Amino acid sequence: MDYKRRRERVFRAVEERGLDGAIFISPENIFYFTGAPFVKGSVGKILYFDRGGTASIIVTDLDYQEVLDFVDDDSVEIIKTEFGERPSERLKKIAGRKIGFEEQQVSYSLYDYLRKDLELKPLDGLAEKMREVKDGEELRRMEEAQSITERALEEALQSLVGGMTEAEIASEVERRMRVLGAESYAFESIVASGERAVYPHGKPTRKRTEEGESVILDLGSRVEGYCSDMTRTLFVGRPKKVLRDVYDAVAQAQDEAIKAAKEGITGKELDGVARGILKEFGYERYFGHGLGHGVGIDVHESPSVSPRGGKVS
Amino acid sequence: MDYKRRRERVFRAVEERGLDGAIFISPENIFYFTGAPFVKGSVGKILYFDRGGTASIIVTDLDYQEVLDFVDDDSVEIIKTEFGERPSERLKKIAGRKIGFEEQQVSYSLYDYLRKDLELKPLDGLAEKMREVKDGEELRRMEEAQSITERALEEALQSLVGGMTEAEIASEVERRMRVLGAESYAFESIVASGERAVYPHGKPTRKRTEEGESVILDLGSRVEGYCSDMTRTLFVGRPKKVLRDVYDAVAQAQDEAIKAAKEGITGKELDGVARGILKEFGYERYFGHGLGHGVGIDVHESPSVSPRGGKVS
Repeated sequence: MDYKRRRERVFRAVEERGLDGAIFISPENIFYFTGAPFVKGSVGKILYFDRGGTASIIVTDLDYQEVLDFVDDDSVEIIKTEFGERPSERLKKIAGRKIGFEEQQVSYSLYDYLRKDLELKPLDGLAEKMREVKDGEELRRMEEAQSITERALEEALQSLVGGMTEAEIASEVERRMRVLGAESYAFESIVASGERAVYPHGKPTRKRTEEGESVILDLGSRVEGYCSDMTRTLFVGRPKKVLRDVYDAVAQAQDEAIKAAKEGITGKELDGVARGILKEFGYERYFGHGLGHGVGIDVHESPSVSPRGGKVS
Repeated sequence: MDYKRRRERVFRAVEERGLDGAIFISPENIFYFTGAPFVKGSVGKILYFDRGGTASIIVTDLDYQEVLDFVDDDSVEIIKTEFGERPSERLKKIAGRKIGFEEQQVSYSLYDYLRKDLELKPLDGLAEKMREVKDGEELRRMEEAQSITERALEEALQSLVGGMTEAEIASEVERRMRVLGAESYAFESIVASGERAVYPHGKPTRKRTEEGESVILDLGSRVEGYCSDMTRTLFVGRPKKVLRDVYDAVAQAQDEAIKAAKEGITGKELDGVARGILKEFGYERYFGHGLGHGVGIDVHESPSVSPRGGKVS
């Protein structure tokens, strides 16, 4: 990955905006700029860009060795905090005065703590906008993650039978994702059957799947930091006619949207293609969410493909 | 769960602090006060407490049905946003003027958006402090989650052999967690062997475990919203003497800390017990993190059992 080139863009933004530096606290953005590994939801590292041209990762002893081993780059300084010292405390000792920050990631608490000594300026989604456009290696990892999820589902289909519980179905797919090379799951797997299939975020339960029911699976692998996100609808035996009809309408809307997807189209326009098809079928009022979203280091990232979605920057 | 009693404490805080209302945006806190289900990392719902005594969940169409089905409580109003309307937009239409908010959860962006119309006051960790002390049902769920993780590991041990990859080990335990009743994993499973075992957040790779190596497993189940968090060290075959010695020292430190744990002790004191034992062995400088942390709806929650950890409120 060309981390250095990505960091240069931040240094340029710091320069152009007249800042003394910039910080990133989201593990995903720190990974994007340096390759420092992370566990989803873990926090505590800070990446500091100084206008003088130094990038520094401030990390506690807990993750120090892992950062040291993975960020194999002389142009990134790795600073271990003193025992009991928080990265935000150390930051204050090394940072300039006027500092850019991730306004969508930094909590009010951290903002309030830092602003006592620093003049904080929102970076206006700088990293998130950069991450919208993927390079070749990023695409390769995402394709690998998707390929693993697809193969895992295909293999699992051989052993899925009606009467299995949602949890059993999830476990059959997940264990194959792991063995095929997923370093983790991109998000909590969703398996919801029968009436529960109306829950887009339904977690797998001990409910048994029954003849004629639909089963929604929403699954993703993570490979070298990058996510896939795949939703599939299965039927147990022969689907009821109404389910089949809805399925066909949704499949048609999806196909048309895929055909319409091209450079320069906005998220709103693409969402409108699918929405238009579902309107023809009279199902529009059941389509109460956006058509899609970007995927990458986060499973949901910019751009949004929805009635609010703008153009990719 | 006595959600109503929890909510009454918030209404009291609103009253005592002279607020017109309070909001919660973290899915974990909304679950704590209402039982509304969530997928880790998903956002978008807002729980609004009005000083008049009404609690309202503002939710988009996406999760509306699930909230409606799970929050079976006449004293919670469930408000579906208009299509394309964000919960934070709707909030502004119904909220009073002076509103308490979760300063650790609300991002600067959301804070900045809301403060244009509302006078925002930090709630000073109100929910997080309440969540430190568990009731009987919470303990039951956490014990069940831990029991599932333990049983899954015990059963998996029968089929674990040297030469398996870290990923295979993870998959053997995880699939049993699912089948035994975990609705999801409390966090991304950690399996790190050999030299990689120095990474406290090492994700399972295709590295094969070798004779004499130690293998760190850090695993957790989630049951009805509540997490367990279990770390275990295994050895492949006969451990090298140095590994055995370190293991024994850590086990002794853990045992002494468990014995010392009692009502009224601070996190700092308890951490000091374990730290003292490791000091006797000369390993203190390798203990670069805290001894432990609270567990609950989040896998890491207050109180902290570390050199910085205070008393449970």
